[in-house]
Amino acid sequence: MITVEIETTARQELVRITRRLTQAVQEAGWQNGLCQIFVPHTTAGITINENADPDVVRDILYSLERQVPSADPGYRHVEGNSAAHIKASMMGFSLTLILSNGRFVLGRWQDILLCEFDGPRRRQVILELIPS
Amino acid sequence: MITVEIETTARQELVRITRRLTQAVQEAGWQNGLCQIFVPHTTAGITINENADPDVVRDILYSLERQVPSADPGYRHVEGNSAAHIKASMMGFSLTLILSNGRFVLGRWQDILLCEFDGPRRRQVILELIPS
Amino acid sequence: MITVEIETTARQELVRITRRLTQAVQEAGWQNGLCQIFVPHTTAGITINENADPDVVRDILYSLERQVPSADPGYRHVEGNSAAHIKASMMGFSLTLILSNGRFVLGRWQDILLCEFDGPRRRQVILELIPS
Repeated sequence: MITVEIETTARQELVRITRRLTQAVQEAGWQNGLCQIFVPHTTAGITINENADPDVVRDILYSLERQVPSADPGYRHVEGNSAAHIKASMMGFSLTLILSNGRFVLGRWQDILLCEFDGPRRRQVILELIPS
Repeated sequence: MITVEIETTARQELVRITRRLTQAVQEAGWQNGLCQIFVPHTTAGITINENADPDVVRDILYSLERQVPSADPGYRHVEGNSAAHIKASMMGFSLTLILSNGRFVLGRWQDILLCEFDGPRRRQVILELIPS
Repeated sequence: MITVEIETTARQELVRITRRLTQAVQEAGWQNGLCQIFVPHTTAGITINENADPDVVRDILYSLERQVPSADPGYRHVEGNSAAHIKASMMGFSLTLILSNGRFVLGRWQDILLCEFDGPRRRQVILELIPS
């Protein structure tokens, strides 16, 4: 089990972490199998998407905010970050990827994105390998 | 493969199942590896979120209902539970967690939540372990 | 690792792929374990839902379009397919299923659905098995 720490820098942000995770996996000497990637938080999630054009990530945040406004008089949770909890559940907390020769099997346009919805904070990403 | 049965008690409800699943895993003698948690339904899903303040779970249901109203003249499915199908797909049906010494690796505020969107019903949660 | 190719035929479509994937798994001689199903795209995802009544799938697409309109003056991504990227992240890109005697463990009403949001295109679905 490996833990990678990511510092987020904004309230809401999708942080490209493919390179950081690949480096961690290679330092651990992991080569082939299924790699479980897990975010142990409730206001940050994980997804995959394009990061060639940064406007894609910006539009994802824009749309999630439109669907789940940060401020809504209907929320009851006193900490005021209900929208962050909801968005994290919509993106999910775990991702299983195939690891092949120390690299994640990803499509050409895919990047792994840590989804910060209540930052800035120091976040953790936990990895585990089941070798094939 | 283990099957755990959960009785839900409301039309829409997020049921905290971490303790029930941990108990089932320990009774089976499972210790370490990747544990697959699967919901074999189409109007119930699974997610992770906070359950320290019950208002978080209440706000998640509130927001999902705002996004996907139970009643919408645009739906065509005759059973009248289209919203439940949609919400279940938004939360997802499978979760892979790391099992370490018979316990799920979870963040401090995380609980595993069975998402009932068309209850009350008797639901199943299926677990499988790949030992590490 | 197996790659299955799926031709989608519409701009937005949920394609039932349970039979195609089961056939591919059986041709590979895979029997038991955890099967990872991965979509290496950013405008197509994967989910599970009912396909007994085709109106369920139609209502899922209807609701996602209501939540994330294809046309929205707020989007900035110049390719004009931001909604497809967002919907794909909402459904997710990976699914882990239990394989038992060459068949996926699924509920009675569940089908595996490839979610096309920017078609028609030739899409790939990648499978990997961790034998139990």
